[in-house]
Amino acid sequence: MENFVYQNPVEIIFGKGSISALSERLPKKGRILMLYGGGSIKKNGVYDQCVKALGKHDFVEFGGIEPNPLFETCMEAVKLAKGKKAKFILSVGGGSVLDAAKFIAAAAEFKGNDPWEILSKGAALESALPIGAVLTLPATGSEMNPHSVISRRSSDEKLHFSNPLVYPKFSILDPETTYSLPTRQTVNGIVDAFVHVMEQYMTYENSSPLQDRFCESIALTLVELSPKLLSNPSDYNQRANLMWAATCALNGFCSCGKIQDWGTHMIGHELTAFYGIDHAVSLAIVLPRLWLECFDSKKEKLAQFARRVFSSNEADNDKAAVEAVVRTEAFFNSIGMRTRLADYGIGASEAADRIRSRFASRGGVSLGERGDIDAERAAKIVSKS
Amino acid sequence: MENFVYQNPVEIIFGKGSISALSERLPKKGRILMLYGGGSIKKNGVYDQCVKALGKHDFVEFGGIEPNPLFETCMEAVKLAKGKKAKFILSVGGGSVLDAAKFIAAAAEFKGNDPWEILSKGAALESALPIGAVLTLPATGSEMNPHSVISRRSSDEKLHFSNPLVYPKFSILDPETTYSLPTRQTVNGIVDAFVHVMEQYMTYENSSPLQDRFCESIALTLVELSPKLLSNPSDYNQRANLMWAATCALNGFCSCGKIQDWGTHMIGHELTAFYGIDHAVSLAIVLPRLWLECFDSKKEKLAQFARRVFSSNEADNDKAAVEAVVRTEAFFNSIGMRTRLADYGIGASEAADRIRSRFASRGGVSLGERGDIDAERAAKIVSKS
Repeated sequence: MENFVYQNPVEIIFGKGSISALSERLPKKGRILMLYGGGSIKKNGVYDQCVKALGKHDFVEFGGIEPNPLFETCMEAVKLAKGKKAKFILSVGGGSVLDAAKFIAAAAEFKGNDPWEILSKGAALESALPIGAVLTLPATGSEMNPHSVISRRSSDEKLHFSNPLVYPKFSILDPETTYSLPTRQTVNGIVDAFVHVMEQYMTYENSSPLQDRFCESIALTLVELSPKLLSNPSDYNQRANLMWAATCALNGFCSCGKIQDWGTHMIGHELTAFYGIDHAVSLAIVLPRLWLECFDSKKEKLAQFARRVFSSNEADNDKAAVEAVVRTEAFFNSIGMRTRLADYGIGASEAADRIRSRFASRGGVSLGERGDIDAERAAKIVSKS
Repeated sequence: MENFVYQNPVEIIFGKGSISALSERLPKKGRILMLYGGGSIKKNGVYDQCVKALGKHDFVEFGGIEPNPLFETCMEAVKLAKGKKAKFILSVGGGSVLDAAKFIAAAAEFKGNDPWEILSKGAALESALPIGAVLTLPATGSEMNPHSVISRRSSDEKLHFSNPLVYPKFSILDPETTYSLPTRQTVNGIVDAFVHVMEQYMTYENSSPLQDRFCESIALTLVELSPKLLSNPSDYNQRANLMWAATCALNGFCSCGKIQDWGTHMIGHELTAFYGIDHAVSLAIVLPRLWLECFDSKKEKLAQFARRVFSSNEADNDKAAVEAVVRTEAFFNSIGMRTRLADYGIGASEAADRIRSRFASRGGVSLGERGDIDAERAAKIVSKS
């Protein structure tokens, strides 16, 4: 096992009716900036519940945060936050709104000239506005981690930053708020959570059997609940289990002491930046091809995964490992997630060229748990997708 | 799944050489009270490492905290803490020292007349001295939770309290510090962690499959690592996996949204209070008998446990459930933990009478996940032990 440091201070308030806990957790003093997305929260009643909780507080609102939130949009919100002297940010929505909230919280207090450098150069932060979250979409795990991913329209870039200053102070997770999600978003959330776990798990052996099993626990839970949930979208327990599984998939707990990959995310982010495909779609397309490209390095863990999660009885490691790749892609397909670039009208060859150029323009990359995926191999992964 | 609130602010610093992180985490100002136990830390070098880290800090020390730490001993330390105006408590040792540190931290700032009421009446706390920990014994999980169990010699009592104020600010876990543990303490730690998980797991179904699998992950890890560790006590990875498994077994994460039992602990605490047997011994004695007494209520989960953790192929639920009880007790025995009162020279019938009287004197009890274990059933469990 590797050495590690773990600390996660987020307060999770989970369950039916948990939005009622919002009011008492909001700061008594100081203006609150309430952020949200495209308005779905106005249809499903969450907006009204939050505005009610904000009743006696001084607040301003900023809607229209898009999926894969844009730097350009965030900077408008930063302007509002500064102009209105907001002291707290309340994120109401999914991971995109919350990722935006984290960047806005950091940018509003940023001492440098260009807040983009928080993403492009990992510029240091001295402080950030405190954040609270009401989550309405299980997927990104942003509700219990210090990560944020932001896109920039002007340069077709999608970059991330992580900083303990942007851990939410609290995150409220009411599974009932997810009943009304479109199937596409539910499926995206399942795939997103699944791939988050795989990035932390599907690497080489380093004697962390408990963390392996935690990861397998989440994958198994997602595989088992998905058909039940998709056939009955108002099943509270399946909604609750998906919501908690997605949080656990990226709150740092599963990866304590583990070797991690994250190559699929790095390549997938570029595909989203270039073609505007959903984040989860980009992951579902890249993951199986990355596993095959790195087969020799990952096959022991792939075989373990096939046996423990897909109940494979295959004794041969190589064959079991192939089974893991095939069955993972079949799982994605079974819940309605298509896993080929062509399914989205994207030419694999052209996409590979763009990936190669992009990574080369950054002076090369070294992705994956061994740092052995360079621009050429990344392009190869995409060309086979 | 049940509604829940979860927040755990402890910083875990885990791995080889991690005690070097101590110095920078100690407060710059204010006197530190360093607590430890029977002196094993002076033999294995941990004391020297800690004193070196404390180098430039103002500190006093208090040794001699016993296993099942006594209220009487703690109150001496409280007197020292107050007299020396200590502002921070550093616990160096196992769960007993840390449990004592938590009580001392609370009692030193207690506003009431009798600090025993923190335990006996759950008296409210307004504040507590901050605590840091260097852990040398994987077992209780105290390093990442807000719980403390204290015994009182004058009344043969063993009581617990929980308060977020006594979460350690940090806990340093270096598996190498556990190489020199006597086998008995290693075995006790394995059993303690195992039973902690069972208290959170072996109840009735409430649609929390992910948490079930997290619990099974810990149990499986303990069952798999135990023979390897006991045959090679200096195997770093097995020591590391035991240490992290014991922390995960009682940091609250596995039980989010679950129904919990804790009957075995409540009965076991009395056996330790009466007869001075090790905490883990008391749990290993009671657990199988409590499972059999509550068989109808627990058999579905017992059967699941037999299949997932002990690879049972038994199709019949009742038979599989019996197998879970038998194999759990066999696991304890296999690592050298005896599981009958008679093994420790204690008469089951007399012990049962004392348990019945003790619980009756408290106006009765309602233990277990259904609250249906009263004094009479508790006595029955003990009489069969």
